[in-house]
Amino acid sequence: MSNGTLYGVGLGPGDPGLITLRAAELIRAAQVLAYPARPGEPSMARAIAAGLIPEGVEEIVMEVPMTPARAPAQAAYDSGADRIAEALENGRDVVCLCEGDPLFYGSFMYLQARLAARFTVQIVPGVTSVSAAAARAGRALVARNQRLEVLPGPLPDDALRARLREGADTIVILKVGRHLRRIRALLGGMGLMKQALYIERATLPGEVILPLADAPGEAPYFSLILITKGEDPWL
Amino acid sequence: MSNGTLYGVGLGPGDPGLITLRAAELIRAAQVLAYPARPGEPSMARAIAAGLIPEGVEEIVMEVPMTPARAPAQAAYDSGADRIAEALENGRDVVCLCEGDPLFYGSFMYLQARLAARFTVQIVPGVTSVSAAAARAGRALVARNQRLEVLPGPLPDDALRARLREGADTIVILKVGRHLRRIRALLGGMGLMKQALYIERATLPGEVILPLADAPGEAPYFSLILITKGEDPWL
Repeated sequence: MSNGTLYGVGLGPGDPGLITLRAAELIRAAQVLAYPARPGEPSMARAIAAGLIPEGVEEIVMEVPMTPARAPAQAAYDSGADRIAEALENGRDVVCLCEGDPLFYGSFMYLQARLAARFTVQIVPGVTSVSAAAARAGRALVARNQRLEVLPGPLPDDALRARLREGADTIVILKVGRHLRRIRALLGGMGLMKQALYIERATLPGEVILPLADAPGEAPYFSLILITKGEDPWL
Repeated sequence: MSNGTLYGVGLGPGDPGLITLRAAELIRAAQVLAYPARPGEPSMARAIAAGLIPEGVEEIVMEVPMTPARAPAQAAYDSGADRIAEALENGRDVVCLCEGDPLFYGSFMYLQARLAARFTVQIVPGVTSVSAAAARAGRALVARNQRLEVLPGPLPDDALRARLREGADTIVILKVGRHLRRIRALLGGMGLMKQALYIERATLPGEVILPLADAPGEAPYFSLILITKGEDPWL
């Protein structure tokens, strides 16, 4: 009996309509699904795919704690990879559900690191939150010879300021969450507030799109800031 | 009679399986399609969607010349926008087919600029060539607090060198095409060849994935270079 294949399947930013045809086909035909969840919370990845999941499928849930220390998350991926490996060794394919795109700040890469040497891995790319936010805001990301830079919000002030100053034409700051007040103050100090949009839960119910100046006091982890500095690309 | 809606629909990088469910639904139900093509060549966007296009649909083809001067392309979008506006004014929805993601170096933004003030526009984001290339190469784009930068290949040497030197953890150079030799020499001079992959036609028949050092002498417009400089994010 030959080993199964591990599929890392991007689900897009949240609207189930933004799942790709290939991802939907793999999920509908799945025997074994795997996905991460925060301990004690429903899995966002599973929620996006819920309408496609067949009855009776085996589900491998990886409870990944969000802690600054890496060890607890690494232990969760170790244990998840072991359970996935067991299914693959039994000749069953495993479809791993990934929010957004599996290789763009996705947790799938931790499974790939643990399993790619022993098993066949196929990755199905997905729509990122960056593309989704731009689409929902109706704002172009980049045109012609413009440059795009993606920055994680947890970067310290100095690093963020340096990137913003050198600045690409369009800058997207992801993982804003609890860093919102700090980043807003920093952008305000640099005179970039007017060009900045705050976007939360793009394509999902409860979506928020506001000028950054009007953003709420608290932001969830899945929030971003879109800053367009370049020449208007619309013409 | 109310006006129709203009849909800007991302089709992903080329494999029809990477079209989203929402995009497929809009194309299957379309009365009027619009898409760009190079003069005298088949439209790549139409080719990606071909299996979904209903019989008898009206097709608005915009022949957009690829010239350094902007005026000929602008004239093509002016004329295309006029024909799309006529359909919308007659109460018909128009589905505009876009390679990749409509707002990521996409031509849809030129139609939006011409039509968004008069008509309702909805954008369906798509999978970018960046996500597709990473998936096909099995290489992570960014993890944790890493930074990603996207650069167009036509940028002059000085600008490319400055960006590469300051460098994000991962850098993607798009629109490589006829700039391949120049960019390869530049990366070689900076000691970045070992970390660079050359990727052409990701997810399409004839896909090429090679170390940049082994890339062919000639590259098509739709080729890219993926440079990962950061800490290995797999662990």
